[in-house]
Amino acid sequence: MDKLPDSVTVYPLGSMDLLSQLEVAKLRDIGAGEVRERFRRCALAVLNTGSDFDDARAVYEHFADFDIELLQVERGIRLRLVNAPAQAFVDGELIRGIREHLFAVLRDVIYYSTEMEQRAEADAPARITDMVFQLLRNARVLHTRVEPDVVVCWGGHSIDREEYDYSKAVGYHLGLRGLNVCTGCGPGAMKGPMKGAAVAHGKQRIKDGRYIGISEPGIIAAEPPNPLVNELVIMPDIEKRLEAFVRFGHGIVVFPGGVGTTEELFFVLGVLLNPANGDLPFPVVLTGPAEAAPYFEQVDAFLRGTLGAAAAQRYQVVLGDPEKVARLMREGLREVRNFRRDQGDAWYFNWRLRIEHEFQQPFEPTHEAMAALDLGGAQPPHLLAANLRRAFSGIVAGNVKDDGIRRIEAHGPFELRGERQVMQQLDRLLEAFVTQQRMRLPGVEYHPCYRLVT
Amino acid sequence: MDKLPDSVTVYPLGSMDLLSQLEVAKLRDIGAGEVRERFRRCALAVLNTGSDFDDARAVYEHFADFDIELLQVERGIRLRLVNAPAQAFVDGELIRGIREHLFAVLRDVIYYSTEMEQRAEADAPARITDMVFQLLRNARVLHTRVEPDVVVCWGGHSIDREEYDYSKAVGYHLGLRGLNVCTGCGPGAMKGPMKGAAVAHGKQRIKDGRYIGISEPGIIAAEPPNPLVNELVIMPDIEKRLEAFVRFGHGIVVFPGGVGTTEELFFVLGVLLNPANGDLPFPVVLTGPAEAAPYFEQVDAFLRGTLGAAAAQRYQVVLGDPEKVARLMREGLREVRNFRRDQGDAWYFNWRLRIEHEFQQPFEPTHEAMAALDLGGAQPPHLLAANLRRAFSGIVAGNVKDDGIRRIEAHGPFELRGERQVMQQLDRLLEAFVTQQRMRLPGVEYHPCYRLVT
Amino acid sequence: MDKLPDSVTVYPLGSMDLLSQLEVAKLRDIGAGEVRERFRRCALAVLNTGSDFDDARAVYEHFADFDIELLQVERGIRLRLVNAPAQAFVDGELIRGIREHLFAVLRDVIYYSTEMEQRAEADAPARITDMVFQLLRNARVLHTRVEPDVVVCWGGHSIDREEYDYSKAVGYHLGLRGLNVCTGCGPGAMKGPMKGAAVAHGKQRIKDGRYIGISEPGIIAAEPPNPLVNELVIMPDIEKRLEAFVRFGHGIVVFPGGVGTTEELFFVLGVLLNPANGDLPFPVVLTGPAEAAPYFEQVDAFLRGTLGAAAAQRYQVVLGDPEKVARLMREGLREVRNFRRDQGDAWYFNWRLRIEHEFQQPFEPTHEAMAALDLGGAQPPHLLAANLRRAFSGIVAGNVKDDGIRRIEAHGPFELRGERQVMQQLDRLLEAFVTQQRMRLPGVEYHPCYRLVT
Amino acid sequence: MDKLPDSVTVYPLGSMDLLSQLEVAKLRDIGAGEVRERFRRCALAVLNTGSDFDDARAVYEHFADFDIELLQVERGIRLRLVNAPAQAFVDGELIRGIREHLFAVLRDVIYYSTEMEQRAEADAPARITDMVFQLLRNARVLHTRVEPDVVVCWGGHSIDREEYDYSKAVGYHLGLRGLNVCTGCGPGAMKGPMKGAAVAHGKQRIKDGRYIGISEPGIIAAEPPNPLVNELVIMPDIEKRLEAFVRFGHGIVVFPGGVGTTEELFFVLGVLLNPANGDLPFPVVLTGPAEAAPYFEQVDAFLRGTLGAAAAQRYQVVLGDPEKVARLMREGLREVRNFRRDQGDAWYFNWRLRIEHEFQQPFEPTHEAMAALDLGGAQPPHLLAANLRRAFSGIVAGNVKDDGIRRIEAHGPFELRGERQVMQQLDRLLEAFVTQQRMRLPGVEYHPCYRLVT
Repeated sequence: MDKLPDSVTVYPLGSMDLLSQLEVAKLRDIGAGEVRERFRRCALAVLNTGSDFDDARAVYEHFADFDIELLQVERGIRLRLVNAPAQAFVDGELIRGIREHLFAVLRDVIYYSTEMEQRAEADAPARITDMVFQLLRNARVLHTRVEPDVVVCWGGHSIDREEYDYSKAVGYHLGLRGLNVCTGCGPGAMKGPMKGAAVAHGKQRIKDGRYIGISEPGIIAAEPPNPLVNELVIMPDIEKRLEAFVRFGHGIVVFPGGVGTTEELFFVLGVLLNPANGDLPFPVVLTGPAEAAPYFEQVDAFLRGTLGAAAAQRYQVVLGDPEKVARLMREGLREVRNFRRDQGDAWYFNWRLRIEHEFQQPFEPTHEAMAALDLGGAQPPHLLAANLRRAFSGIVAGNVKDDGIRRIEAHGPFELRGERQVMQQLDRLLEAFVTQQRMRLPGVEYHPCYRLVT
Repeated sequence: MDKLPDSVTVYPLGSMDLLSQLEVAKLRDIGAGEVRERFRRCALAVLNTGSDFDDARAVYEHFADFDIELLQVERGIRLRLVNAPAQAFVDGELIRGIREHLFAVLRDVIYYSTEMEQRAEADAPARITDMVFQLLRNARVLHTRVEPDVVVCWGGHSIDREEYDYSKAVGYHLGLRGLNVCTGCGPGAMKGPMKGAAVAHGKQRIKDGRYIGISEPGIIAAEPPNPLVNELVIMPDIEKRLEAFVRFGHGIVVFPGGVGTTEELFFVLGVLLNPANGDLPFPVVLTGPAEAAPYFEQVDAFLRGTLGAAAAQRYQVVLGDPEKVARLMREGLREVRNFRRDQGDAWYFNWRLRIEHEFQQPFEPTHEAMAALDLGGAQPPHLLAANLRRAFSGIVAGNVKDDGIRRIEAHGPFELRGERQVMQQLDRLLEAFVTQQRMRLPGVEYHPCYRLVT
Repeated sequence: MDKLPDSVTVYPLGSMDLLSQLEVAKLRDIGAGEVRERFRRCALAVLNTGSDFDDARAVYEHFADFDIELLQVERGIRLRLVNAPAQAFVDGELIRGIREHLFAVLRDVIYYSTEMEQRAEADAPARITDMVFQLLRNARVLHTRVEPDVVVCWGGHSIDREEYDYSKAVGYHLGLRGLNVCTGCGPGAMKGPMKGAAVAHGKQRIKDGRYIGISEPGIIAAEPPNPLVNELVIMPDIEKRLEAFVRFGHGIVVFPGGVGTTEELFFVLGVLLNPANGDLPFPVVLTGPAEAAPYFEQVDAFLRGTLGAAAAQRYQVVLGDPEKVARLMREGLREVRNFRRDQGDAWYFNWRLRIEHEFQQPFEPTHEAMAALDLGGAQPPHLLAANLRRAFSGIVAGNVKDDGIRRIEAHGPFELRGERQVMQQLDRLLEAFVTQQRMRLPGVEYHPCYRLVT
Repeated sequence: MDKLPDSVTVYPLGSMDLLSQLEVAKLRDIGAGEVRERFRRCALAVLNTGSDFDDARAVYEHFADFDIELLQVERGIRLRLVNAPAQAFVDGELIRGIREHLFAVLRDVIYYSTEMEQRAEADAPARITDMVFQLLRNARVLHTRVEPDVVVCWGGHSIDREEYDYSKAVGYHLGLRGLNVCTGCGPGAMKGPMKGAAVAHGKQRIKDGRYIGISEPGIIAAEPPNPLVNELVIMPDIEKRLEAFVRFGHGIVVFPGGVGTTEELFFVLGVLLNPANGDLPFPVVLTGPAEAAPYFEQVDAFLRGTLGAAAAQRYQVVLGDPEKVARLMREGLREVRNFRRDQGDAWYFNWRLRIEHEFQQPFEPTHEAMAALDLGGAQPPHLLAANLRRAFSGIVAGNVKDDGIRRIEAHGPFELRGERQVMQQLDRLLEAFVTQQRMRLPGVEYHPCYRLVT
């Protein structure tokens, strides 16, 4: 992780070159405030792309003297970077993809903090979906008049070479069929499908292939966007990011992963188990190389064990057959298209999908909140899903997020309580993740940030 | 003025196809409210383009049963038009340029009413310029990285064939030099330069020539945009429209006109006479065919008589030489470019120009307000300019705006009071406008809506 | 007709910037040869656009010191112009449309002289259509995958203001319906429809409207392309130019004109009267303002009188209704589309149309050739049409072409012989053209270049 | 190597959709002729991309029942494929990149056989360079107004994983610097740099990155173009292909390879050793992973031993540093740019480079011709280079080309004679190629097709 010695001034790309004087003044007033720090950290994350480093806190400490400043000069605005990571540059010039990311971060941080955050009603249920829509619209990722073609790919940032190559092959076969890829940014299963799709798009002469990354300030440092990402959106928190995935994407492919991937799975299945969404077509395929069979058996068992057999109706497992995955997605997306056409629904945003407040409400994983989670089997499956989603979310934070790591250092592991039957299954799953090195990047010794209490 | 018998459903063009559900709901809630009526009237105006009719009230009465409805169906929004003017259609299909105008109107009316109007600080001086900027930005007319090339053309909607052809010739020579044209929309001197520029752009193979129209709800029915206008902006009131002209445009050409044109002249000269703007280059050329010499002598004398000789330093008069006008503009715009480059100013918006609150504050021409105007010569020239601007603005309203016409009908002509010396000059000028048929379209007998009292 | 004092160097536009060293050498070797002179004259013609001057010889004499040189310098080729007409320039820079024309001329002259002229079989019947195709393809005017939308407009270069405005209105209504315009270049009825269409295309936001001009070296000086023409093709002779019109265009509108227009009419009707073309849909509309009724009655009578009533089945006459003309064309083009789709014919070139050798063979109007024409009614209508076509072609040459004018000066008027009945009709028609000032631009006294002998 | 059972009809892409009826007739007349067979084989090669098979004869035998037919139907032409390789299709549809290749092959085969082959003077020295230019121009790969940015990458089709990854890394660093890649098509070192560049272009948001493949009918089956190749040119023979590389490319990177790569090296060094080219900047870098050091030592020794130390002035060897290679190329290309600018030379084609007839004249490797080659050291270096180039060319043919393989089967290995000192060095080099499996794809046992005789 080298740094560039001097400061560098960067010109805007994309839509950010037009700020009013009041807007610039507001941004500069922010001074040492929270918004500024959020921006600085996200900016650092996109500049730090490609480094093999999944510990957000370590990144921030290593680049503690990194600074970023908004200048209003001459014909618009500029960003001044001080002590920026060297790998973002080629012969002293910022890679253009990273430059775009920098201004995408600025765009989203400004938009959220000036247009939304302060609104009193920001947490009102009816407002949240609207905010997700507005953030995506403001980032110009909602394209009208385009038939469903966005496949969301989830999976671990820490996967082995075989799994990575497999994810590339899936992306390749999706790309050959003209489909686009949306992931959560970062390395591993979030980069592979994009690389594969990019090669396939080249062969099919698709010049406007989309490699969409949706991140959030807490995770972006651990999972920085690959510069291939040509549309980057920073949602304000993890719940809005998850909602963005399921309303904006048209189908989901899930590769092997760890607690983050499991969090995502519980989100989408919890939402789809809602009876209001019973008729909605939404293809979900769990897939990996043939060798990943034991992993998927375990995940499948855990999902069935906790959410019931009905949950398993909502996904398919495909092993070692990337072309089949792509064909299933293409067929699934056709069903989505037909359904929305018949209903008169928009193609670019799934307004119809019902998402309960339990899934939308931001969850802050304090020790108290984690301990208070009801992981008992007595509740309806989709509420249990919501709580398990939160539990996994907390473990992700304890593993790789700056805040979470600090909390664990200060107060020891989170305690999770619940019915024995659920806890035993959970214990087996987490144990397996540790053994398979899915918790952190390989080579980092893993100290669990949680303790299961029954 | 034929009407199409049935209702027609229109698909969005431009940026308006992405509305959130809350936004649509808000729009529909507006119901019979004021915003809805504003939208209906502006929409009617753009549909009524090309009709020879400059009486806003008459237009509204003739099309009293015209209606427009926002539908949220299928994959987005639609507009349903009922009893729309027939001339907007070709073989039953809306002319594409008009379709764009319709959604530009929707865009600006929504943006203003949802983002700005309700804000408490909307009238605070510091806010007004920012609003002007935001409205223009939201309409995407501010292009970065483009050197100054926007020439604002002002002049009467009611001019004779010779003056019209002359305005076309000026537009032609501006266009041959790669310059773009911005006007207030409407017929006459606001259409001629665009037509001329369009032909010249064709010859120069300029495919993205700009024909920008800036209007406001009160005037648009009397001066509907020609469909050649390929960027239409509706500012919320006349003062913001005038501010938009002088901050967005890089130079101004003034053709013969009536009270509206005189209002505009007093605005720009009043602003330029402000000592804070003393160094700012801003080319202003008054021009017309050789036959218009007496007209310009009279205007020149009035400007000198009321604002002093200093005002005359800020403009040039050119008679019967369209090519010279174009060359002067090109040179003037180069100075603007050099000045802004040296100062580090933006090219797309003149932030530096100082506009006093007297020119920004909306003026509502009631009989009381008109009577209260101080038209005495004892005040500094730029304040007298501000008041004369208001006086002319009131006469425009009394002549062609719906509200104004109603007021005159109810209470008789406005009374304007002031120092004899000013009033005499004013009297001569207005008299000449009446004689030269510059008050209303030819063929309409003119009944003055004002009375000068000394 | 001013000249620019100095020489000007012009960079290529379009496809002409890549010449091999052998090609450049060949071009320069041409030296004072015939090809070089052909190029010089065509280049002069496109530079001389806009001048009111329809006498080719006079143009050449006025600009006798005009010269053009092909330079191979730096990274490609350049053209050096000496003593070029001033009106082609704006502030010392060549208008871009004219620059394109210059290189279109170079392209076509080179292509014909290097690829075609020398081929032994150039005159073989089977080759001529192929050459027409190749010249059009090389000029890149043949667009695949585009439905029929090219309306050829014929008519006089010398028409009155009313007829000109009418031709603009027809172009406007064609343009509103998305149709494109192809003419023979030049002023009058060849410029009006393009101007009208350009305005309508602007209103319909059609950015790639096509204004195609097809000329030939003999006529181009008398009918220089308006710079609006954005695709210019120089066919090698008048017969290939006529074939290009009817194979490339999808329908024809004929405005009032003189002998040139009549030549064109006899060409298209002669071709359509061929029984082999009996089923081919090909809309032909003769139209003008209501005042042109007597003109069309006369033309109609002449066509019926010489070619028979069957010929009249192939065209419609519309008076004073531009919108109707546009609607007829749109309907006619739909039939063309349906027919070609059913037959599997190309949309961009009418291979199926049978054109007899009589219409393809270049006709050189010497006194002997003119005197030898068989204008007797005993032959089949389409052969009589071929001969009448030649007769009119000769008169055009005697009126405005350099060679023709010289011949008339040297040997007196052409003699035309034929059956009394045909000759009387012909006499009446030509007499009317003289009276109506359709032979030459108004203001030029007309001395007939022909004598009818019975 | 599966085949698709049925026939498939393919629509044209690129410039091939416009053929005249005579052209189609000529093509169909070709019937079972040589041109048709050449076309069939090239078409098969591009369809067979991706198969691991470098034996042209085996490909032709395996797909002996493959057929391709040119149809003139409906609105243009079509190709009908019978028994085509299955891997060119995705869900029954031809990959678009391959479709483009198919029509590029058709374009080049037609152009050469209709425009060039029959010309009497085709072999005249002055004509050959012109033909190379015309073929490249007709394929539209010559872009004017673009600064030198084409890096030719040469190297073996049979290289190990490490060397392949290294070639990708070099391509990546070239791409990050905005450079484009041209290779001879095929797998290995000809595919790696394109893949790397494609990813880098994505990160730099370069949408029009160029991946140019230049092949010839004899080699294309053994080295089919990867579908990433977005500009494919088929030169008529290997000598014109080599001339195209050095006149079209601006610099050359040479990866490890076998006899083909050595042939290329002798071509470029032989040309550069010509005193007439002494001043021409032309960067040549030999590079590979650190492990390839022995290989490059051997090649370097052979070049010095045969061509002398002067040859070594013309290239640099870089080991294990892809970024350095890219920086050297960028600097080298800047010199090329400056030189051409100073000389007024074109950027898109190196007319100035002198290539002697020995390098241009097609060499047909019969046993007699091979045996007759003068490989003695008594001749000037650039003539020895020409003969060594031919010797290597013959070995390539004997290894992988259809004709060559047949000759070797019929008459046994080629005999190469020469001075002992040269032959010993040659022996060591070829021996090493055999040992390092650079002669054929790994897994194929190699039987030398040559015998060295001293």
